Amino acid sequence: MHHFNLNPKLYLVTDRCWLGERSLAVSVEAAIQGGVTLVQLREKEVASGAFLNLAQDVKAVTDRYGIPLIINDRVDIALAADAAGVHLGLEDLPVQAARKLLGPHKIIGASAATLEEAAAFQKQGADYLGVGAVFPTATKLGNETVNLDDLRKIKSAITIPVVAIGGIKAENAASVMRTGVDGVAVVSAIMNQSDIRVAAMRLMSILKEA
Amino acid sequence: MHHFNLNPKLYLVTDRCWLGERSLAVSVEAAIQGGVTLVQLREKEVASGAFLNLAQDVKAVTDRYGIPLIINDRVDIALAADAAGVHLGLEDLPVQAARKLLGPHKIIGASAATLEEAAAFQKQGADYLGVGAVFPTATKLGNETVNLDDLRKIKSAITIPVVAIGGIKAENAASVMRTGVDGVAVVSAIMNQSDIRVAAMRLMSILKEA
Repeated sequence: MHHFNLNPKLYLVTDRCWLGERSLAVSVEAAIQGGVTLVQLREKEVASGAFLNLAQDVKAVTDRYGIPLIINDRVDIALAADAAGVHLGLEDLPVQAARKLLGPHKIIGASAATLEEAAAFQKQGADYLGVGAVFPTATKLGNETVNLDDLRKIKSAITIPVVAIGGIKAENAASVMRTGVDGVAVVSAIMNQSDIRVAAMRLMSILKEA
Repeated sequence: MHHFNLNPKLYLVTDRCWLGERSLAVSVEAAIQGGVTLVQLREKEVASGAFLNLAQDVKAVTDRYGIPLIINDRVDIALAADAAGVHLGLEDLPVQAARKLLGPHKIIGASAATLEEAAAFQKQGADYLGVGAVFPTATKLGNETVNLDDLRKIKSAITIPVVAIGGIKAENAASVMRTGVDGVAVVSAIMNQSDIRVAAMRLMSILKEA
């Protein structure tokens, strides 16, 4: 369907709030050097112009490494930055509306928390699913709605790639991968680490062994 | 350039915070019945999916009256709703980036506070300018940066339509129109009135006489 080689094995979702003095582009580069296979730029509190600038900065890095860049929510930013695609949450544009704007060759990911949602998004033309939250996260406590058994059931019923998300870190990543999912998406397990490259390397080696 | 007949004489910018129990679509319809010639949907605190729903609801009304609907900031929402165009503030996407996504036939408006900004946006391909704030507004005090003399100078130097914005109401609308601008944009002078239709009618009769 699309030109990009979608490998969501270690999927980095950005969150600048963990970065302190480090720039986002530099942090993303370190994460890619550590093995991240897909990057999502997620920015909730930024104006459109600044979001586009940030997307362009990060895309200069992801392009250099041949890693697809996914933009959270904003189809216009994805188009303006010529990113690889978008990730849509339940409150974002419907998958079909985004597909109409993006055309057949861009990646559209969608967030699902149940098998019903997952099946619906697959039917609507999503290219991959982010499923969770599997564990409580640093930013959202008590939001875990998908356990490992649910994850296994969703994965076995769905043909597009399934990425687990929510509180995944080195300590629990192997148990998540053993459900059969295609990858894990992480925020703080990479972004909140003092050595981002090493954190990504460590996670990737766990994913490969699992 | 575009298919729409751009008449910005009485330009309604929406703000749901004034509406109380009234729905946005019903309020916009009353404003159009009172004489509003152009409508901008401005929503800052809403998720993308809800913004699209709202845009579709309002567009059903504006279409019925042949009034163009402009979407604030969000090019993707404008495209998905097939609105007439977008209005871009200084923190939004650059005019050229929006034009690339929207094509030659959609309306692009831009906010300018100086003659330099106005000339730059005209050069970049904006179809009209919103210039202000002319007077202090209910939501932003002390933000008036364009006086009536500035407005006159900007209007005489610019060839695309110039719409004045910022604290314009029945009491001062005539003085604004006498600067030569093509129209006035209002929020609370229509949205915050108990009878929206009558408020718009009263404003329009002042604009016509000025």
